[in-house]
Amino acid sequence: MGNDKEPGKKVYLDNMATTPVLPEVMDAMLPFFGDIYGNPQSIHSWGDEAREAIDAAREQVATLVGGDTEEIIFTSSGTEANNLAIKGLAQGQIMKGKHVIVSAIEHFSVLHAARTLEKAGFEITEVPVDKYGLVDPDEVARNIKKETVLVSIMHANGEVGTIEPIAEIAKRVKEAGVLFHTDAVASTGSIPVDVNKLGVDALSLAGNEFYGPKGSGALWVRKRVRLIPLMDGGVQEGGRRPGTENVPAIVGMGKAAEIAVKNMPSRMKKLSGLRDKLIKGLPEVVDHVFLTGHPTERLPQHTSFCVEFIEGEGMLLWLDRDGIAVSSGSACTSKALKASHVLIAMGIPHEKAQGSLLFGLGLDNNESDIDYVLEKLPPIIDRLRQMSPLYAKFIKEKRG
Amino acid sequence: MGNDKEPGKKVYLDNMATTPVLPEVMDAMLPFFGDIYGNPQSIHSWGDEAREAIDAAREQVATLVGGDTEEIIFTSSGTEANNLAIKGLAQGQIMKGKHVIVSAIEHFSVLHAARTLEKAGFEITEVPVDKYGLVDPDEVARNIKKETVLVSIMHANGEVGTIEPIAEIAKRVKEAGVLFHTDAVASTGSIPVDVNKLGVDALSLAGNEFYGPKGSGALWVRKRVRLIPLMDGGVQEGGRRPGTENVPAIVGMGKAAEIAVKNMPSRMKKLSGLRDKLIKGLPEVVDHVFLTGHPTERLPQHTSFCVEFIEGEGMLLWLDRDGIAVSSGSACTSKALKASHVLIAMGIPHEKAQGSLLFGLGLDNNESDIDYVLEKLPPIIDRLRQMSPLYAKFIKEKRG
Repeated sequence: MGNDKEPGKKVYLDNMATTPVLPEVMDAMLPFFGDIYGNPQSIHSWGDEAREAIDAAREQVATLVGGDTEEIIFTSSGTEANNLAIKGLAQGQIMKGKHVIVSAIEHFSVLHAARTLEKAGFEITEVPVDKYGLVDPDEVARNIKKETVLVSIMHANGEVGTIEPIAEIAKRVKEAGVLFHTDAVASTGSIPVDVNKLGVDALSLAGNEFYGPKGSGALWVRKRVRLIPLMDGGVQEGGRRPGTENVPAIVGMGKAAEIAVKNMPSRMKKLSGLRDKLIKGLPEVVDHVFLTGHPTERLPQHTSFCVEFIEGEGMLLWLDRDGIAVSSGSACTSKALKASHVLIAMGIPHEKAQGSLLFGLGLDNNESDIDYVLEKLPPIIDRLRQMSPLYAKFIKEKRG
Repeated sequence: MGNDKEPGKKVYLDNMATTPVLPEVMDAMLPFFGDIYGNPQSIHSWGDEAREAIDAAREQVATLVGGDTEEIIFTSSGTEANNLAIKGLAQGQIMKGKHVIVSAIEHFSVLHAARTLEKAGFEITEVPVDKYGLVDPDEVARNIKKETVLVSIMHANGEVGTIEPIAEIAKRVKEAGVLFHTDAVASTGSIPVDVNKLGVDALSLAGNEFYGPKGSGALWVRKRVRLIPLMDGGVQEGGRRPGTENVPAIVGMGKAAEIAVKNMPSRMKKLSGLRDKLIKGLPEVVDHVFLTGHPTERLPQHTSFCVEFIEGEGMLLWLDRDGIAVSSGSACTSKALKASHVLIAMGIPHEKAQGSLLFGLGLDNNESDIDYVLEKLPPIIDRLRQMSPLYAKFIKEKRG
C-alpha cells in the first residue's frame, strides 16, 4: 500500500475544510497589500481607494446572497459571523425574552455560542434531526414560546451535506414573530442563497468556502434588526464590527462572490456529477459502507460515508500517503477525534460514526481523481479491517 | 495652493493608521493562498504544511515580544486582541472582583470594551494623564482596591506618540497581585517590547502596524492566566480563538515580526531623525502650532501637533491635493470628527484639539518628504486661517 502511488499525484478532496484561492481572486487582492494600502477610515486618497474597494466588494457579496449592501457586515471568518449572530441577536432582544432554539447538528460556532448564552441565563432548546440530518419545520414551530427571541438553523450541514428546508422553517418562525438566523457557511457560493427567498433575518457566510481567502467572512443582517456587537472599538462596518478592515481579504471575498454568481450553474453541474460518481462508486468497491446525510437534498460538492469497523483517522493517514486529502468531520474539531455530534444526532451508533469519511469536492477535481480514490481506498480499508477487533468479531459472528 | 504640486509626488505619512506590506512579507505570504491552502486543523499533508507555517510564525511573533510560542493567540486585529484581553481577562477573574482600571487615553477598543464590562456590572476607573499624556504609576497604585482584577494601560499612544512607563506601572500592579494588560499595538515592531522586562501579563499587537498585513493581530497572554474566549467554536489557538486560521496573514505577521527584530535599531535611527526634523521644522515655518505628546518619550515614527485656530479636516483635504497623507487622530474614529478624547484628557482645550495633525512616518519616507511637507503645509494653514473666525478674533484682540 503506498508503493504503487502515482508519483506526485495529489488529489485534494477536503474543500469543505477550506478551498484554495482562485487565481482571479488573487489578482484582485494583490494590489491591496503593498500598493493600495491605505486605511479605509482615513481622509485622503490612500484611504479613498481602499474604501471604494470595500464598497465594491460589499456590493458583490450582497448580490451573492440577495441582500442590500448596507446589510453586509464583514467579519474575519464564518465562526465570527456565527458568534456575532447568535450572541448579538439574542442579546439585542433580551427585553423580549431569553429563549433560543438551535438544531442539534449546528456547527460548534453556533452550538457553543448558544451554550455561552446559556451560562448568561438564556434557555437553549436543541431541536433534533431525522436520520438524514433534516430538521422538521413543525418541530421548530412546536418549540417556539413567548420568550423565544431567536431561532438558528443551518442552511446546509458541512459534515453530511444535507440541505435544510430553511424557507419552510423560516415561514413558521416568522409567523411567530421571532428572529431567524441561518448559518450558510457551507452552502453560500455553492448553491443559490437568497435571503428573501429563504425568508431569514440574518445569514452567515465565509469566503474561504467558495474560493475566496481565509480570514474573510460576513454576516448579512436585515435592516432595522437590533444587533449587539461582539467587539467594541472604532466605527467600522457601521459600528457593528470594529477593527481596521482587512481590505485584501474583503476584496478577495467580493471577487470570489462575483465569480460564484457567474459560474454557479456550471459548478453545480460538474461537482454533482463527480459527487454522484463517488456516491455510486464507493459501495461498489467496498462492503459495509453507507452514505451519511440526505441522498438527494445535499450540497453538490459533498459526499460523506461511514465505513464500518474502522476509524476515520487511520483512513486519513493512509490516504494522505497516496496523496489524497479527505477529512473525517469538521476541520474545526478534527483534532478532538471524537465521534461527530452531527452523526450521533442522526442516530448513527458511536462505533459507526467513528468511521466517517468526508469528501469535499472542488473545482480542481475531475473524474480521474474519483477513479484514483476508488482505486486507493479499498485496499486501505481492507488492511485497517484486518487489524480491527470489531471486524474480527463481525466475521466470527457471521461465520458462526 | 495645489497648482505648484510636483506631478505625481506622493508622500504617505499616515503609518500610524496602517503600514504597507513589505515585499519580503508579501513573498512569504503568497504561497499560502493558492498553493499551500490546506486547513491547519486537517489531518493530511496540505494541513501539515499550513500548520507548520503557523508554528513558525508563532515563534517569530513570540520572539518579537519576548514571550513563549504557546502564549501567542493569533487574532484578526489589534482591536480583537484588546477586546479579548479586556473582556476575557476581567471575566476570567470575576470570582475575585469586578473592578477594572484603564487610562483615559486608551484606544476605543480598550475604553469601549471597558464600558461594555461596566454594563455587565463591573466598576471601571479611568486614571488621568498629565499634559504629555503620561500615566502616573502612583495614581494607578492608589486606585487599586481589593475588588480590582485587571489594569490595562497602553504601551504607547497612537495619537500623541507618548510612551508610558509600563515597567513602573506593572511593578505596582503586580505587587498588588492584580493582572496587568498593555495595548502595545502602536509600539510593537517600532520600539523594543519585552513582556518580561515590562512585567505584564498580557499584551496586544497588530501586524499592520509594523509592515505586516491587515487582518493580523495577536494577544500574548502569560501561561496559566485564565482567559474567557470572545468567540466559541473550534479548537484553534488552544481553544482560545476559534475559526479557520488566516494562514497567509499569520505567516505575513510572522515575517514582519522577524524583519522588525532584525532592523529595529536602524529603523529607529532613521525614523527618529525624520521625526526630529519635522518637530523642529514645523514651528519654524508656522506660528501658533505646538507639539502634542511627550517631547522625548515618544515613538520614533511619531509626530503630532495642534495647529491653532483651524480644524484638522481642512488641512487633511488640502494636503491630500498635494499628494500628502496625514491624519487628525485615530483612524478608527476619524470619521466621527470629534475632538480627540486623548487630547482632551491631556488638558488641551476643545478648540485647539480640533486642529490636531498626526504624522506617522514610515520606512518609505526620506528627508525630502519632510521638506515637501514643510513647504506645502504653511500656505494651507495660512489660507484656512484667513477663513477662520477664531483667527480673526485672535488678530483683532492682538491688535486691539
